[in-house]
Amino acid sequence: MRDDTLYKKLCEHYENGAYPFHMPGHKRNIPKELFSINPYKIDITEIDGFDDLHHPEGCIKQAQERAAKLYGADETYFLINGCTGGILAAVRACTQTGGRILLARNSHKSVYNAVLINQLRPVYVWPEDKDGLAGEISASEVRKALEENRDISCVFITSPTYEGYVSDIKAISEAAHEYGVPVIVDEAHGAHMKFHGIFPESAVEAGADIVINGIHKTLPSLTQTALLHVQGNLVDRKKLGQSLSIFQSSSPSYVLMAAIDYAMTYICHEGVQLYNHYSERLKILYDKLAGLDNLYVLPYGSGRDASKIVVCTDRAGISGHELYDMLVNAGIMPEMSSLYHVVLMTSAWDNEDAYEGLVKILCDIDAGLAGGASCEKYTYPKAEYVMPMSEAERAKEKCAAESIATEMIYIYPPGIPIVVPGERITEEVRAFINELKDKGYKVMGETVQQEDSIL
Amino acid sequence: MRDDTLYKKLCEHYENGAYPFHMPGHKRNIPKELFSINPYKIDITEIDGFDDLHHPEGCIKQAQERAAKLYGADETYFLINGCTGGILAAVRACTQTGGRILLARNSHKSVYNAVLINQLRPVYVWPEDKDGLAGEISASEVRKALEENRDISCVFITSPTYEGYVSDIKAISEAAHEYGVPVIVDEAHGAHMKFHGIFPESAVEAGADIVINGIHKTLPSLTQTALLHVQGNLVDRKKLGQSLSIFQSSSPSYVLMAAIDYAMTYICHEGVQLYNHYSERLKILYDKLAGLDNLYVLPYGSGRDASKIVVCTDRAGISGHELYDMLVNAGIMPEMSSLYHVVLMTSAWDNEDAYEGLVKILCDIDAGLAGGASCEKYTYPKAEYVMPMSEAERAKEKCAAESIATEMIYIYPPGIPIVVPGERITEEVRAFINELKDKGYKVMGETVQQEDSIL
Repeated sequence: MRDDTLYKKLCEHYENGAYPFHMPGHKRNIPKELFSINPYKIDITEIDGFDDLHHPEGCIKQAQERAAKLYGADETYFLINGCTGGILAAVRACTQTGGRILLARNSHKSVYNAVLINQLRPVYVWPEDKDGLAGEISASEVRKALEENRDISCVFITSPTYEGYVSDIKAISEAAHEYGVPVIVDEAHGAHMKFHGIFPESAVEAGADIVINGIHKTLPSLTQTALLHVQGNLVDRKKLGQSLSIFQSSSPSYVLMAAIDYAMTYICHEGVQLYNHYSERLKILYDKLAGLDNLYVLPYGSGRDASKIVVCTDRAGISGHELYDMLVNAGIMPEMSSLYHVVLMTSAWDNEDAYEGLVKILCDIDAGLAGGASCEKYTYPKAEYVMPMSEAERAKEKCAAESIATEMIYIYPPGIPIVVPGERITEEVRAFINELKDKGYKVMGETVQQEDSIL
Repeated sequence: MRDDTLYKKLCEHYENGAYPFHMPGHKRNIPKELFSINPYKIDITEIDGFDDLHHPEGCIKQAQERAAKLYGADETYFLINGCTGGILAAVRACTQTGGRILLARNSHKSVYNAVLINQLRPVYVWPEDKDGLAGEISASEVRKALEENRDISCVFITSPTYEGYVSDIKAISEAAHEYGVPVIVDEAHGAHMKFHGIFPESAVEAGADIVINGIHKTLPSLTQTALLHVQGNLVDRKKLGQSLSIFQSSSPSYVLMAAIDYAMTYICHEGVQLYNHYSERLKILYDKLAGLDNLYVLPYGSGRDASKIVVCTDRAGISGHELYDMLVNAGIMPEMSSLYHVVLMTSAWDNEDAYEGLVKILCDIDAGLAGGASCEKYTYPKAEYVMPMSEAERAKEKCAAESIATEMIYIYPPGIPIVVPGERITEEVRAFINELKDKGYKVMGETVQQEDSIL
């Protein structure tokens, strides 16, 4: 068999690759007894006795009920097409074609895809500017938007953000519920928050109606697995179930479903001990990183999730991309970088010596930096809304003539669109994209790359 | 750790379960060196050097090119949300919202979901009645429909069917291409057909524009994996790529992608030998099964895929469900049954002694049957089209008053809707559904199960 298969390349990376300060949360470091069997041996289809994800009545239903109990939700669905499938289904369940949605503008591209295929007309709320990063969504702005747009049928919030900022989901849910409107929270990056007090309150506890958790991101489950929790009586559960069946394979993987169930069971049994230990280690890590001179690390607390180590570079005179490269050279693979910061993801499954190694490497890098440079920081600029996404797709010539985007422009990760189809590419947007390109980022969205680009 | 996890239940089934005459095609019987590593160890995210399924430029692009070469397609995409994701994307790429699609009515529910979310107005072609089973779609009927409906933007055909019947994709493609319209073939059950002359011609060879192969169904890949092939210049490739990104997780599983690549590489290297041996074994199997007295097996040839053993029960005076139960009791798990037949799926990865065992068991069952009963065979009845699916979803009261379905009614497998939302539930449909229920089938679609059912 040839040596350049993806499988061989992945095996080689396991042996010799950089340490993963990125997802998945299992960090390729899970107990030996987990999946000791070859995955093909447990890869089946919906035969007698093994239930059906799309109409669960047996062992899958029971596994979902265990997950619901762990999270305190009314009902929980296993997702095998990632958070993507859950987001598409949740938005479809809570809207009518052509309807209105209140949307945190710093959301992932998958919700914009949901807006597109349902031809929704979004009302945006923009996050607070946290010194160049997207911070929380204000509950009073949500209330104001609901008051001004009585045809909004649901609120969609992303919390925590990639950098760990959370919104006050309790206050947002209270506001939305006063208007009889359900709240969907993309909590893809917060599946672990429920399990220790060091983390902010989880969205299920805060009263959101639908919460989507990407359990591969911070928990020991396989990539592409997620959970969708639902509670309360504002969501049409039948339409939600139908929508999940639309966007998820009719041949769901039992390997992925078994991984979800195993992660849940694992946390049920050993979660308290694991998360106590993990939170202690995190506190020590943050204490040590507080001693950096030129780089600096964002603090954690009720407003930010401690699991994400955000190292800022703007006072050290280097870009996020430069720090990223230095870390990779030192044997650490970060989750992502942006103009002036790097995100390092931790989990309860990190190696015991991983944090010591990280501190040493960051201190060494820090000692070699000049500091005092204080770069100008860019925030995601606010693109101007002109027309719905679905309309822009049909009016390509008009859009080209008027500098209106016809496809999403973004870097990945984080996958949050800088410009959405139907938004005008203003001078401010143009400058931001050029800055990203200058700093070495690959900007997605073909209009950006073409010779005859409108940028 | 508790013993009732899905993982433990699957391991137990591997040890003690019935022999799988069902998908996946690897039959839990793959060479030891394949995935000998724990899957968590190779479960990563889009880190440097590992490409991005949604914008492939490196190792994923190369793996996709190897698959394209194997199938003779212009381009091939890896699918990690099953054929479902590929079907949703293909239909979106080839239509405009509210447009018209020519659709083989015996298609899988996922294409009806594509019709629903794109608000399409379908024109149906019905398959030939093969003695109670859905047979081929006539190319001349496709041509007639295209002539009568000049606004059709694509043709969607399912071939082979669950029972292995293929359509003349070459003639259908020629007809469609005369009208400048692309042909999408759901060849979920025919990923193996390319690899030996005992099987009918594959849809890529026959000139279809988009072909979707469920490679877990008959090849040695993990469940939920599939391929989408594209060729020619009738498909908007950019819209196709965007559509695939909409319906597939933005965190695709490297375990699933590695499994796809491994299956392709495996067949590249050992396919000729494996398929020669397999076809010889199949011929012997069919010869031996020709000796049954009361049950009978459908023949194979250019019009039917030999890999699917279809055992008919109508002349033996028992239902498909009864034969299914007899087989399960004898230690064989079939893929599915319907009113008067059972489908057994074979693959090149079946155990060497599996076919001998099947022959013995079927002969024993056959010897115990009376025969000569000659049951009345039911065909899928033709429900009457009243309104588009998307309209039926919004007009629930009117539909209830006029016996029009508002959700799909089907048994799974095969997952082909008996009634689609917007179709009238005629007396003939009612009788067919009652017959299915009488024979012990679980009919999906809530209207069927409710006390105040319109059925």
